[in-house]
Amino acid sequence: MTTVREIRLKSRPSGLPTAENFELASVDLPAPGEGEVQVKNLWMTVDPYMRGRMNDAKSYVPPFQLGKALEGGAVGEVVASGDAGFKPGDLVQSNLGWREGFNAPAAQVQKLDTRGLPPQAFLGAAGMPGLTAYAGLLRVAALKDGDVVFVSGAAGAVGSMVVQIAKAKGHTVVGSAGGPDKVAFLKAIGCDHVIDYKAEKDLTAALLRAAPDGIDVYFDNVGGEHLEAALTAARPFGRFAMCGAISMYNATEPPPGPRNLFLVVGKQLKLEGFIVSTHWDMLADFHRDLAQWVKDGKVTWKETVFEGIEKAPDAFRGLFSGENLGKMLVKLG
Amino acid sequence: MTTVREIRLKSRPSGLPTAENFELASVDLPAPGEGEVQVKNLWMTVDPYMRGRMNDAKSYVPPFQLGKALEGGAVGEVVASGDAGFKPGDLVQSNLGWREGFNAPAAQVQKLDTRGLPPQAFLGAAGMPGLTAYAGLLRVAALKDGDVVFVSGAAGAVGSMVVQIAKAKGHTVVGSAGGPDKVAFLKAIGCDHVIDYKAEKDLTAALLRAAPDGIDVYFDNVGGEHLEAALTAARPFGRFAMCGAISMYNATEPPPGPRNLFLVVGKQLKLEGFIVSTHWDMLADFHRDLAQWVKDGKVTWKETVFEGIEKAPDAFRGLFSGENLGKMLVKLG
Repeated sequence: MTTVREIRLKSRPSGLPTAENFELASVDLPAPGEGEVQVKNLWMTVDPYMRGRMNDAKSYVPPFQLGKALEGGAVGEVVASGDAGFKPGDLVQSNLGWREGFNAPAAQVQKLDTRGLPPQAFLGAAGMPGLTAYAGLLRVAALKDGDVVFVSGAAGAVGSMVVQIAKAKGHTVVGSAGGPDKVAFLKAIGCDHVIDYKAEKDLTAALLRAAPDGIDVYFDNVGGEHLEAALTAARPFGRFAMCGAISMYNATEPPPGPRNLFLVVGKQLKLEGFIVSTHWDMLADFHRDLAQWVKDGKVTWKETVFEGIEKAPDAFRGLFSGENLGKMLVKLG
Repeated sequence: MTTVREIRLKSRPSGLPTAENFELASVDLPAPGEGEVQVKNLWMTVDPYMRGRMNDAKSYVPPFQLGKALEGGAVGEVVASGDAGFKPGDLVQSNLGWREGFNAPAAQVQKLDTRGLPPQAFLGAAGMPGLTAYAGLLRVAALKDGDVVFVSGAAGAVGSMVVQIAKAKGHTVVGSAGGPDKVAFLKAIGCDHVIDYKAEKDLTAALLRAAPDGIDVYFDNVGGEHLEAALTAARPFGRFAMCGAISMYNATEPPPGPRNLFLVVGKQLKLEGFIVSTHWDMLADFHRDLAQWVKDGKVTWKETVFEGIEKAPDAFRGLFSGENLGKMLVKLG
């Protein structure tokens, strides 16, 4: 019998979550049954989307339940196995974070081949944000030699991978982000031209200064004014990978679209929206390329680490202060 | 020596052209020189874009010159040849319309293989408007079995070909146009659901009634409210062939884009602008398919015909009264 601790949702937050919305509880794990594995979690991720699941509202994922452990991405190590496919010491990935360990049917965990990358990278750079950048650039925007790439939200989890993957493939990259810390971070990871959009009156003019001959690819994380600037700066046959529109997330009513969308016709542009789950088939290629890029010093990332399951609520709440750079993680093992 | 008549630009119109802006003149044609052909024009086209060339302003085509014959698409017959590649009786296509005949270097005319279609069709259904519809559906929108197709400006030269090509390929087609005459025309050419946008308060609601399960392909000739409706009605992975945006042509300042453009991400839509000249390589395939569809009674078109070169200015001015259905042509031969 092993005792593990987990974080449960005690009450539903109103607005920003407080410490009182969470509780720490202990659970006794018996030996795993037939077809089950017992996993000791090493790392877990906290992500903004989890806030939505704390409400009792219908969405594309069901709400968390009161009095039950929260869920989310985690990497861990098999410590005991009742399934022929797993043995103690195997590294696995699961959606059973927010707990120090668990018993679960073997189908609920995936073996992790780290290819020399640190295991927690698979919750960030080597996980969904990284694959989003990789698929958006290589498949959706169909990056080709000589393309000039523009990316908004460039200091974010996805954006910073877009910058580095495009640089690793030899492209000129223009990144946009808000504030001097993010600008410094982007320069440090090799972004050729950095636009501090908070310091610019005219984003289109700033983009045309950074890319006087125009852009071929736009990786859109924010929508709004950035999309207008990209349409104006686009070269003929430009491709836009439409990943998100942060500018709209908190809007109370839909803001108007770009006033220059008609440029799509004359310049023969392609705007394509995508969701990472459509491109899971690229994961093995991504991990192979990423491992090589990391080895070559071409791709790196930042982490903010909280230690101990009891710190997970603080880590989660810290996401909304917005000051952290890089992936927010909790180290459990 | 042959005498032919031609229409020259006498003065630049201000607003709608008047009869006084044009003059009829006669020209004597000698026998064609070495490498030249002499062509008797049979048909010429009048098109709205010619109005722009009557201004003395820079554009993507140079302005017409005062005192010189106008230009535009024409089909004719070689009557004498100084070039080994052409012989009397050959049908040819040129940009030397607005005249009964001409001498020109052989390189300025293209031989026309009509495949049984009437020669004047190559100024309309078998020409640029038809190829625009064909390329937009088959290559840009990459039409595939079972797609539900929505087209705006459906009674126009391009739109009516979109409707018929999509029907010929077995698709369900929703067309939008303004007014009872256009609605009747669309029903006559087999459009499954016709929306009279002038009679609808809520275009999105009308589209969702016509296509309750949504649309897969949108062929956009107008932009604006139609594009918003199409974004709302689009199924996941919908493809939009962006051909034009009539709603913006006369706007004094750019109107806002669609308020629901963010749907591109969640539905993973692709919006692609295109210009017909990029797709000339499809012309032979288009003519082969079109000849078959016409033979099978699947594609037809309307023509409004003025007879005689002296009527060409009237035909041209008639374009702007907007009441004609189908291609406006002048019969010369």
